[in-house]
Amino acid sequence: MTAEVVPTAAALVIGNEILSGKVQDTNSRDLALLLRRLGVRLEKILVIPDDRSQIAASVAHLSKCHDWVFTSGGVGPTHDDVTIEAVSDAFGVRTVTDEVTADLIRAHYGARCTDGHLRMALVPEGANLDVTESVRWPTIRMHNTFVLPGIPEVFRMKLAVVEAVIGRHRPFVSHAVYTNMDEGHLKPLLDAVVALFPDIDVGSYPTWTDARFRTKLTFDGLDERAVLDAKNAFLATLPSGEPQWMEP
Amino acid sequence: MTAEVVPTAAALVIGNEILSGKVQDTNSRDLALLLRRLGVRLEKILVIPDDRSQIAASVAHLSKCHDWVFTSGGVGPTHDDVTIEAVSDAFGVRTVTDEVTADLIRAHYGARCTDGHLRMALVPEGANLDVTESVRWPTIRMHNTFVLPGIPEVFRMKLAVVEAVIGRHRPFVSHAVYTNMDEGHLKPLLDAVVALFPDIDVGSYPTWTDARFRTKLTFDGLDERAVLDAKNAFLATLPSGEPQWMEP
Repeated sequence: MTAEVVPTAAALVIGNEILSGKVQDTNSRDLALLLRRLGVRLEKILVIPDDRSQIAASVAHLSKCHDWVFTSGGVGPTHDDVTIEAVSDAFGVRTVTDEVTADLIRAHYGARCTDGHLRMALVPEGANLDVTESVRWPTIRMHNTFVLPGIPEVFRMKLAVVEAVIGRHRPFVSHAVYTNMDEGHLKPLLDAVVALFPDIDVGSYPTWTDARFRTKLTFDGLDERAVLDAKNAFLATLPSGEPQWMEP
Repeated sequence: MTAEVVPTAAALVIGNEILSGKVQDTNSRDLALLLRRLGVRLEKILVIPDDRSQIAASVAHLSKCHDWVFTSGGVGPTHDDVTIEAVSDAFGVRTVTDEVTADLIRAHYGARCTDGHLRMALVPEGANLDVTESVRWPTIRMHNTFVLPGIPEVFRMKLAVVEAVIGRHRPFVSHAVYTNMDEGHLKPLLDAVVALFPDIDVGSYPTWTDARFRTKLTFDGLDERAVLDAKNAFLATLPSGEPQWMEP
């Protein structure tokens, strides 16, 4: 059996508003859920300020270390939107106006169109401008780096383009078991299943707020048979009355 | 006028459950809001898996680059809880049992106490174990690195200890202005105020879902007078009928 090559990814969330706590980042979680479904391993989420040199350095580094990179934020027309220029810096290219996008902007704003609006047509030179049937506004991708907007509704809309471009790999499978045992008592049982199934990612999550259970266990992997075998091996070691319930 | 030295911080969120999208991280935002109030600049949030060598490398790096580091997650007793050992690795010390914590654990679990439970008494050798009047369970801090639990309710509880240890600096001041103008039209007005007030962090955030306004502008800084001056300079340039409203 040869080891399966799983594509990897990193998310770069850009915005002072996240670091100051004004806004709760939800884009990285929406991305995480999509990538899980597509069989891509999200290895890192990094949140940094609207700072051109920091963004450029992060994109340059992440795009070398992961198969896919997704930036979120900093693509509007104002002074604090520096992501496009930073991505250009990261790949050593100029920032240029994409005329197709510029025409879309002129058509949208008509006589009210300003130089400010047209800043939204700037792209790193040589970028791919991906469109799909349902998302016709171009989505900027520079090599392996998608440049996505920070507004959550628009970010989510663009995920359809991400899915179309990177395609579906073997999706991750996840099963959950809910118990009333605490982690101290679960530890030897978990150690046993982890030793038997090294390829399965076994997670243990205690709750302090849900009265229906004490610890949630998760069994994740790419091979559904192995995930089920690990879960069943664990279930066989539980005392009577356990588990409380399972998902799915 | 000498430049004010603002303490800096980084958050290291540890957990496969965040990267797989099972759980929405909210700890980093709770931390961000506290640090804002305390006058500490949160410069980076990094989310990585439950991987000892990755955690160790990240802690070693972040603790050198920032005044304070806050880890979240990976401090329970199970196989996927490797943060304590990783923090020890980062600082080149052994992981040892803290007898005070071990006694608390034994008192709590009584006859049901297992070796698994006692793993929660492990600390990096030489760590500070901070307590406050209200949070008597020791909070682990290795030099400038707080090691906080991932469970949101417990994380929030520990923030009282963080506040007690790092103290209050000059808090950040933030004012917000809500307008019906779009960013393309706002850009020249914002550029003007940014040029006049380089020390003020001016943010511009369009909404796609709130019908009451089109763009939220924020004015943040440490000097309340300068924040108000920047806001007022901007307000003076708005057309009649604007802004829609302001906060505070």
